[in-house]
Amino acid sequence: MGKQFSIGLDYGTNTVRCLIVDVSNGREVSTATWEYSHGTHGVILSRDPNLARQHPADYLAGAEITIKKALKQAKVKPAQIIGIGVDTTGSTPLPVDANGQALALNKKFAKNLNAMAWLWKDHTGVEEAAEITALAKEIRPHYLAKCGGTYSSEWFFSKVLHCKRTAPEVYDAAHMWVECCDWIPAQLTGNFKAGVCAAGHKAMYNEAWGGYPDAEFLGRLGLNGLRLPERASSIAESVGGLTGEWAKRLGLPAGIPVAVGAFDAHLGAVGAGIAPGTLVKIIGTSTCDIMVAAQTEDIPGLCGIVNGSVLPGFLGLEAGQSAVGDIFNWFVNYIKAGTHEELTQAAAKLKPGESGLLALDWNNGNRTILVDQRLTGLLVGQTLYTTPGEIYRALIEATAFGALTIINRLEEYGVKVEQVVNCGGIAEKNPVVMQIYADVTGRPMKVSRSAQTCALGSAIAGAVVAGAHRSYADAQRVMTGVKAKVFKPNAQAHAVYRDLYALYHQLHDGFAVSSWNGNMINVMKRLIEIRQTARS
Amino acid sequence: MGKQFSIGLDYGTNTVRCLIVDVSNGREVSTATWEYSHGTHGVILSRDPNLARQHPADYLAGAEITIKKALKQAKVKPAQIIGIGVDTTGSTPLPVDANGQALALNKKFAKNLNAMAWLWKDHTGVEEAAEITALAKEIRPHYLAKCGGTYSSEWFFSKVLHCKRTAPEVYDAAHMWVECCDWIPAQLTGNFKAGVCAAGHKAMYNEAWGGYPDAEFLGRLGLNGLRLPERASSIAESVGGLTGEWAKRLGLPAGIPVAVGAFDAHLGAVGAGIAPGTLVKIIGTSTCDIMVAAQTEDIPGLCGIVNGSVLPGFLGLEAGQSAVGDIFNWFVNYIKAGTHEELTQAAAKLKPGESGLLALDWNNGNRTILVDQRLTGLLVGQTLYTTPGEIYRALIEATAFGALTIINRLEEYGVKVEQVVNCGGIAEKNPVVMQIYADVTGRPMKVSRSAQTCALGSAIAGAVVAGAHRSYADAQRVMTGVKAKVFKPNAQAHAVYRDLYALYHQLHDGFAVSSWNGNMINVMKRLIEIRQTARS
Repeated sequence: MGKQFSIGLDYGTNTVRCLIVDVSNGREVSTATWEYSHGTHGVILSRDPNLARQHPADYLAGAEITIKKALKQAKVKPAQIIGIGVDTTGSTPLPVDANGQALALNKKFAKNLNAMAWLWKDHTGVEEAAEITALAKEIRPHYLAKCGGTYSSEWFFSKVLHCKRTAPEVYDAAHMWVECCDWIPAQLTGNFKAGVCAAGHKAMYNEAWGGYPDAEFLGRLGLNGLRLPERASSIAESVGGLTGEWAKRLGLPAGIPVAVGAFDAHLGAVGAGIAPGTLVKIIGTSTCDIMVAAQTEDIPGLCGIVNGSVLPGFLGLEAGQSAVGDIFNWFVNYIKAGTHEELTQAAAKLKPGESGLLALDWNNGNRTILVDQRLTGLLVGQTLYTTPGEIYRALIEATAFGALTIINRLEEYGVKVEQVVNCGGIAEKNPVVMQIYADVTGRPMKVSRSAQTCALGSAIAGAVVAGAHRSYADAQRVMTGVKAKVFKPNAQAHAVYRDLYALYHQLHDGFAVSSWNGNMINVMKRLIEIRQTARS
Repeated sequence: MGKQFSIGLDYGTNTVRCLIVDVSNGREVSTATWEYSHGTHGVILSRDPNLARQHPADYLAGAEITIKKALKQAKVKPAQIIGIGVDTTGSTPLPVDANGQALALNKKFAKNLNAMAWLWKDHTGVEEAAEITALAKEIRPHYLAKCGGTYSSEWFFSKVLHCKRTAPEVYDAAHMWVECCDWIPAQLTGNFKAGVCAAGHKAMYNEAWGGYPDAEFLGRLGLNGLRLPERASSIAESVGGLTGEWAKRLGLPAGIPVAVGAFDAHLGAVGAGIAPGTLVKIIGTSTCDIMVAAQTEDIPGLCGIVNGSVLPGFLGLEAGQSAVGDIFNWFVNYIKAGTHEELTQAAAKLKPGESGLLALDWNNGNRTILVDQRLTGLLVGQTLYTTPGEIYRALIEATAFGALTIINRLEEYGVKVEQVVNCGGIAEKNPVVMQIYADVTGRPMKVSRSAQTCALGSAIAGAVVAGAHRSYADAQRVMTGVKAKVFKPNAQAHAVYRDLYALYHQLHDGFAVSSWNGNMINVMKRLIEIRQTARS
């Protein structure tokens, strides 16, 4: 038998990527990316800073353009492609008609922002999220226990309910709302299966209570009659075979299996070699932290604990930071204080604590621990001589402190973090960020061997559903790995960061934890003392 | 008798200005400025962000260059110049030898930063200031009562003591330390008189306790034997006549009187028409707030209350903000997010509260109320879409909130503010800033008629000591005024700013007042509510 390959399709915030992978060894034979054509780098914005949408036409165009391009480069025969996997951002639901077609593709709704896909970082449903949380606290507290105690404005029902309230013409026309990661496999196969990753982490799906939230709960929200799938499936399953039409369009064999879709971070974790004890951090515009565990108690503030959402047979644990790369991008693109390269270079020259600055990483809210999208950024310690490089470093450090807060929370609840494997663009390209993460956390930072773990994870799913490996563990053994270069913590830097972290924690609790009742008078003084120590 | 003119010399942070004024009506017939040649725009910096020095050679060159240039433009006869007044920044002391010559002009000390003038914003004496405050609290509490309860690192003894501790070679070589505003008249006349403005506001001079601090106090600090003048004089007095050498160099009559020197803000207040009930704000790199009163109790947190320091016969009250224009300059020159013009234009388009941002104006510490140079800046409310124009406006608003905090403190202690007259470059050139000040404070903002009130105040002093007017009040009546354009508060904007000011106050106390014991959990949420209200 000759070489076999699978396709991983990875739908990000700004671009879609296609990766073609040798299923016997994980070798990435070709890749192609395409930036979505709508909006600003693929994101449709409005005057409301909470709004962020995508056009589903970009998803279809993206599949066709990138698969064809990658196939052309790969020089493999179509018959050698045995399966396809798909990952996307999420929760990114879109309204569809009875045929599963996106409403936005209907002329009637072509210009209606509410008929588009509601991108993960859309927070227009802030009030609805609060209402869902309040109702669940009152009548279904167990719904909240698996999603960190607070239902987020980023998630499925907040968005659907906000649409019902503010755009009833779209809500009424929708037959169903489908997650982007389920919609694309449905388009490719003509079949539909809801993935447990999206359902469990974003739509309160849990086998323990019979699936999605019950009719009384939905009714109390005013979502009576909302159509929801019967059950949700793990990535161990195939949705169906590639349709003849898509096969023809792409030049691929009809009928090759397409795996159940999942979120980018979850399939990224698979591509980074996730296993019990391994924390996989997918660091991009936001960061997702993924672990798997045979069992765990509920962990307050953790976005989700869902059976089978990452690897079949394990609980999938999802934590994360609402913005990481997006904070750095904000500073470069909005404040325009320099390029990423210039600022990284300037930041690299500074010693921990030297700038006297401290930031909170909440420019896009806080996803894990506080689960509050209405928190905002904070920078303290500025003088008349503070430079952009110093601020940029403080922003990097803030995201590292946020990362440490998540690790600490996991371990407090008995989920031991034995190693950290990073992936995503920033882990790949920015050694300064990785070293700061090592120094702040006091832990070695490993980087996934693949530069595109999400797409690799999807390709692994394609390989598994095609039967090339008996299990995900078998597939990961040959298809994943880490780079030789490991970022080891510097003890001296770590000591300074322990002091800074105490202040971060103080701001963190002072600005966001209602039971916290201290004051902050020592914060600035302590920063100056630390700065003086750093300079001496 | 023909027209008579006086000269005002105004030594700022970056430049020196000469103004020639018609003593009969305040008409400004010519002006000339010169940027100091040493350092960065006249300020000598080092790696220590607390250090800021000036070279005394720049003071002498500046007098000669600007007086000659202004005289040439003025087309007045030398014999028509009847007097000279001098104002400078302060506390800006410099070490001098037994002849009154600056040590920095001696070859031996030519490159020694500690032999230069220690510019007002030099904060290297932070620890010494704390020590002086502690000692005064212990044995001379009345010394502190007149300077706001805390002796500042910006002030005379903090700097002198820091020099003794860290640069004994300079301290030992110094015969005396002289304020810049006293040193220049001494150079011009060959005579020396200490001005009560500098002595009273920065060196704890008070006739009530016999002048400068007593020997025991100085001895306990380790300043035994420090030479200090016998007494201090108000601007009602002349130091002496212009020396023959300077007269020749400048092309002026020898012997014309030079008034006792004072700080820029104090003579600026004179030039802006200060009288009881009038708050004069000199808004520049920092801001000085000056009032005069027949009598008042001690006001906690006010930098100084000194008899005769502004107008002879009245208590002079000095308050201020350590950085105002310097904060805007920091954002433009260090963060490089746009020019002042671009940022002001962008800021002008925003409604109060719209950005969701709130800042503290403490990038250079806090001079009045908190009297703590080790406080730093803070910005809160950033999202992923925050723009430089929004931050710039938040910085302007922060300085306005700081200004309001000072007005409130004055009135709490019975010093009624009946009108506010602004002067200085920002008041002159930036109507957006003035409107925000009116909206934040809820008070009309008037602007001094003269664009250069400090130099005008000095020229008034020159006119008074030359006998052209019988009193300062007489001189002010004809030589000062306000512009027709008054910035009136907008009621709607003021209402929003009342809400924002409550949060500013919460941050202010939360980050700096040790007795404050609340928490800050509502700050960000409130900002968002206010932002939503502003946008709806």
